[in-house]
Amino acid sequence: MPAAGAAPVRRLGIDVGGTKCLAVVLDETGAVVGEERRPTPHGPQAIVDAIVALVDECRPFTSIGVGVPGLVTRAGVLRAAPNLVDTTDFHVREMLGERLGVAVEVDNDATCAAVAEWTFGAARGSSDFVLVTLGTGIGGGIVAGGALQRGANGFTGEIGHMVVDPHGPPCPCGRNGCWERYASGSGLGRLAREVAGEGRLVRVVELAGGDVAAVRGEHVQAAAAEGDAAALAVINDYARWVALGLVNLTNILDPQMFVLGGGLATAGEMYLAPILRWMTQLLYAPELRPHPQVVFAEWGERAGAVGAALLPTVR
Amino acid sequence: MPAAGAAPVRRLGIDVGGTKCLAVVLDETGAVVGEERRPTPHGPQAIVDAIVALVDECRPFTSIGVGVPGLVTRAGVLRAAPNLVDTTDFHVREMLGERLGVAVEVDNDATCAAVAEWTFGAARGSSDFVLVTLGTGIGGGIVAGGALQRGANGFTGEIGHMVVDPHGPPCPCGRNGCWERYASGSGLGRLAREVAGEGRLVRVVELAGGDVAAVRGEHVQAAAAEGDAAALAVINDYARWVALGLVNLTNILDPQMFVLGGGLATAGEMYLAPILRWMTQLLYAPELRPHPQVVFAEWGERAGAVGAALLPTVR
Repeated sequence: MPAAGAAPVRRLGIDVGGTKCLAVVLDETGAVVGEERRPTPHGPQAIVDAIVALVDECRPFTSIGVGVPGLVTRAGVLRAAPNLVDTTDFHVREMLGERLGVAVEVDNDATCAAVAEWTFGAARGSSDFVLVTLGTGIGGGIVAGGALQRGANGFTGEIGHMVVDPHGPPCPCGRNGCWERYASGSGLGRLAREVAGEGRLVRVVELAGGDVAAVRGEHVQAAAAEGDAAALAVINDYARWVALGLVNLTNILDPQMFVLGGGLATAGEMYLAPILRWMTQLLYAPELRPHPQVVFAEWGERAGAVGAALLPTVR
Repeated sequence: MPAAGAAPVRRLGIDVGGTKCLAVVLDETGAVVGEERRPTPHGPQAIVDAIVALVDECRPFTSIGVGVPGLVTRAGVLRAAPNLVDTTDFHVREMLGERLGVAVEVDNDATCAAVAEWTFGAARGSSDFVLVTLGTGIGGGIVAGGALQRGANGFTGEIGHMVVDPHGPPCPCGRNGCWERYASGSGLGRLAREVAGEGRLVRVVELAGGDVAAVRGEHVQAAAAEGDAAALAVINDYARWVALGLVNLTNILDPQMFVLGGGLATAGEMYLAPILRWMTQLLYAPELRPHPQVVFAEWGERAGAVGAALLPTVR
């Protein structure tokens, strides 16, 4: 409770996404007491203008944090952002600090989402968990030993680029067989188009308007929800790839739980049973260890903004 | 410096390996002031007897730590140890504590090696590094965010069982294409025997007494040291697999450095240049980030015992 006369806590967080910027204001209990959004423009200067406009709509605030997609240095510089146009070496913290005249915390959007789930979400109280966003790509945020991990440069959590098959399909990052080629939302679509190309996904292709090339993850989900066996087989294959990456992370980090977020998590229940079944098959010494829990993110599309708002509370 | 009249620090550490148990005594500066060894017998009771005998040879001591290979719980129970005979569910801490009448710290041997390198070795002062032991298998110890990581159950660092090719050769752990099938010392031998089987490793096979099935990593190393081009090509292929795993770990954990230990590290210089070259090719956004350093462990075969001795100093 604020001291008599003190301004109430209003933590402002902004998530800069590929298509939109979302701002939220949190009170000290973690309740969202304000929310604004704007399209994401192209280039650092225009993005800074959009953020400043959102900030002005959300005043007053007691702290401010920003989440951005890509490699973010500990000094708040966005080094590489595949989903933002023209933003290599974007000095987010410095440019915003100068414009706003206040300190701004900046971090990777998946790291922010991990903070949101850790503080007020599915991973409350956990000392060891990995947040995994299954969207266009795969992002990650890691809490280990009771601390948010950022790494030597701030780049911890690029789990989507873990190579799980060096003979696999090419990734825009320049390598082959990155985990996100298989286990992201787009990975699901790619797996489905491969099967559809062999004529084995009649109902899914029908839902995609009869065009194999138009098949996306959502068509597989819709057909699977109807009980279509071929679509369920694709979901099962997809779940095996998700599990493979989760098991790799388990071998490396031994987390208590995985929190799955991103677009796919909204229909997550469909994937949960096959993911857990494959994890049991793939885990090292499955009978001799507790298995990590797999749960879904509670913050949905707000996770990045909520976590950005909470960045000043985390050390 | 000990207070006048206080007993000098003598930290006892014991590393239980597949073939031998090594005990060291460290003073407060990290100098080894005592060392004893015994063969590793079979089964928990016999191993406890061997450890107690080593302890008696090393008295007096001010603290005691033990490193064991495999999955070690935070309560000091060895759950699974592929390289020890008949030791599933070996209550190391409890059995030793009862026999010795003092508290005993117990952890995984690679975690111990990380502690040795962190406190008095190649990773002194580093807040984010991964120790990688390249031996019969691959073990790992992780320091992240300035803290030794143990995970929810104590199983952090089983990096050798990260799957890097699900279509790869079977691993005794029950899965296929674990990193250690390629990048361990035995992995080097396996890669070499594949090539030798195609008749392309004349000098290496000669060094192995003319028998393709007898080819081991050491024969490849010896031929490569002579400048044999075919052996150097195997080393280069092997280095690619080592780099692939290091890059995966970099994407996940963003360490400042890797410390390579284990048997292969003793001839490590031969591998360093190709490993670094492959890492540059495989890293995500290589031009936009500092590359992690790759250095060699300083403690050699004593790393596990030295780190075990230092366990009581780490929280």
